[in-house]
Amino acid sequence: MATLVNDSILKNDAAGPVPVSGGLGTDSYYNHSFFQKIAANVAKDMIDEAIAQKLDVKSLLSSSKTIRLADLGCAVGPNTFDAMQNIIDVIKVKCQTHLPTSPMPEFQVFFNDQPANDFNTLFKSIPPKREYFAAGVPGSFYGRLFPDSSLHVVYSSYSLHWLSKVPEGLEDKNSPAWNKGRIHHASAAEEVRRAYAVQWGNDLSNFLNARAREIVPGGIIVIVTHSIPDGMEYSELANGMMYNCMASILLDIAKRGLISEEQVDAFNLPTYAASPGEFVSVVENNECFNIVTMGESNPSPWLTDDVHVDMNEFVNHIRAAMEGMFNKHFARDIVNEMFERLEVKLSEISVEMESAYKDKIQAFYVLQRM
Amino acid sequence: MATLVNDSILKNDAAGPVPVSGGLGTDSYYNHSFFQKIAANVAKDMIDEAIAQKLDVKSLLSSSKTIRLADLGCAVGPNTFDAMQNIIDVIKVKCQTHLPTSPMPEFQVFFNDQPANDFNTLFKSIPPKREYFAAGVPGSFYGRLFPDSSLHVVYSSYSLHWLSKVPEGLEDKNSPAWNKGRIHHASAAEEVRRAYAVQWGNDLSNFLNARAREIVPGGIIVIVTHSIPDGMEYSELANGMMYNCMASILLDIAKRGLISEEQVDAFNLPTYAASPGEFVSVVENNECFNIVTMGESNPSPWLTDDVHVDMNEFVNHIRAAMEGMFNKHFARDIVNEMFERLEVKLSEISVEMESAYKDKIQAFYVLQRM
Repeated sequence: MATLVNDSILKNDAAGPVPVSGGLGTDSYYNHSFFQKIAANVAKDMIDEAIAQKLDVKSLLSSSKTIRLADLGCAVGPNTFDAMQNIIDVIKVKCQTHLPTSPMPEFQVFFNDQPANDFNTLFKSIPPKREYFAAGVPGSFYGRLFPDSSLHVVYSSYSLHWLSKVPEGLEDKNSPAWNKGRIHHASAAEEVRRAYAVQWGNDLSNFLNARAREIVPGGIIVIVTHSIPDGMEYSELANGMMYNCMASILLDIAKRGLISEEQVDAFNLPTYAASPGEFVSVVENNECFNIVTMGESNPSPWLTDDVHVDMNEFVNHIRAAMEGMFNKHFARDIVNEMFERLEVKLSEISVEMESAYKDKIQAFYVLQRM
Repeated sequence: MATLVNDSILKNDAAGPVPVSGGLGTDSYYNHSFFQKIAANVAKDMIDEAIAQKLDVKSLLSSSKTIRLADLGCAVGPNTFDAMQNIIDVIKVKCQTHLPTSPMPEFQVFFNDQPANDFNTLFKSIPPKREYFAAGVPGSFYGRLFPDSSLHVVYSSYSLHWLSKVPEGLEDKNSPAWNKGRIHHASAAEEVRRAYAVQWGNDLSNFLNARAREIVPGGIIVIVTHSIPDGMEYSELANGMMYNCMASILLDIAKRGLISEEQVDAFNLPTYAASPGEFVSVVENNECFNIVTMGESNPSPWLTDDVHVDMNEFVNHIRAAMEGMFNKHFARDIVNEMFERLEVKLSEISVEMESAYKDKIQAFYVLQRM
């Protein structure tokens, strides 16, 4: 079941940013982000190796004494602190090896997320003993965030599957992409999936255009993201099953007259898992980045017949990440009921969920600015 | 009465940071910072002129295509946005004049305050249409905040009178600086004032040492701050009268047994208005900055016999800035009573308050990194 978590960091939605639940309380994202941590760690060694091999610290430090890193879509922590420190450690080893007589560079880390993200919690959690200067940058990473040629390493984990807005046509009765009775493209018409794919492609293209300006030549982007093998149906993934459950619960509530069916039709989750083929195609069209390394993995290799995820814990986790988006569209008591019933429903289909396709649903990419 | 406001932005206290009241509500600092805005504007033209004359954009832009600005102690806005835009406008005019054929540089603005500051409110208030990239930097400006040689212009308005901690000896019965029955050095023994002066000198020295590392040669610091003519008693200033009122109210409450006298003795406001003589002496000892220009002003020239400040409005303003500090030391209902009675007390002495010394109680300094 832990595979579900790939989709659960929420940073964008159609009507503007809806960040993860802030604060440090029981239901907060801060306390429910360990799934992301473990999933991201699956690719850690390969990412470290790519940075170690490809980042030419000698050339980067010829024009600046400071190495600037950014985590785009960092949420409220704490995973971002480990990720940034990890990259700094890799760079420090490179500096010690290749520039043994030079002073160690200074590091500056920019933590980015939507302006509505809980930066207060993030800032209070930054490790007091750290090896870098810290700054927060509010704004959408689908646009410019930093001055020209000012960044050396950009990291973005479980963020780029969040679209900048709901794809076009989903909420239009006259469109072939009208997504009646669903809240996602899983199990929907091909036109719906295509609308999602188009929006995702435009968003990644905007992301790369902005980064192409901001990253120095030789600088690197590391992306860890939700993925899907080319040609596979999203409904074969545990997340797809979960979105279908959510839609079915909302339609049940509509039948009782507490909300209208139109309200359900007008709600769509702006999240898309692209295949490596789609990803590579957008990067190649952009023409500013080389793909240094890429790979797919099973983000939950520890999940076995004997090891299961506690469903209550899991739904708390999903809720911390997604509740804000539902709350913008539905009344609070409807959202409460939806998540309560979700736990019951997912428990009922836990065997199917656990046996859902899990290989290659996480991808990582290391891109280098030409 | 508006002269009081010089002392009312609260950023530091002994037991750690106590920021101004956050949010956008009625009692928030955001809605009660117009006094600071007007006061800071008194020196605006002279500051603009100093930047225009002394900032050598040609030389600054030879090593960077980005001009980096920082507002140290920015609170939650909105004054900081006007101040930063104003400096950018001055620089843009210089660039158009001296580098007419070069592309306009990009600007990056760092908004700094204590980690406990309400950055969420600040970030939501940043003008969406702006000419700079924005970042927030949590941390005390009495230590390092930025990489070496990374800043071009630093601005700090009504922040540097806040000490990093309560001066030594004030809360020690055996010290000659024991500040019994008072919450500030106004009307206190000379040893108390001296303890404040020493702490302020150490703090400014730390501030300058950190900035000396962070600011490029030729870069500029603009400081607008509470001031006092050399040799003048703080009790002659309206703020001094107000602090004495606060102490007297707290002692009254102690007499009724609701708090102890020891609790009042253990509370001291960490704020100090230095004279130009003291300021210049610390800058000269630091040896990294030239004083480009300096001046003193009456921050409330609009206050006349016919124009008065509404006392209720004024106490709301003081409360938004100071309440957090009192709340850390006293129970909420004691603080409520203190501010309610403060309004009554200040109304009773409004004639004395309005006729208090007002000239030269604001100073501005423009320093240039050698």
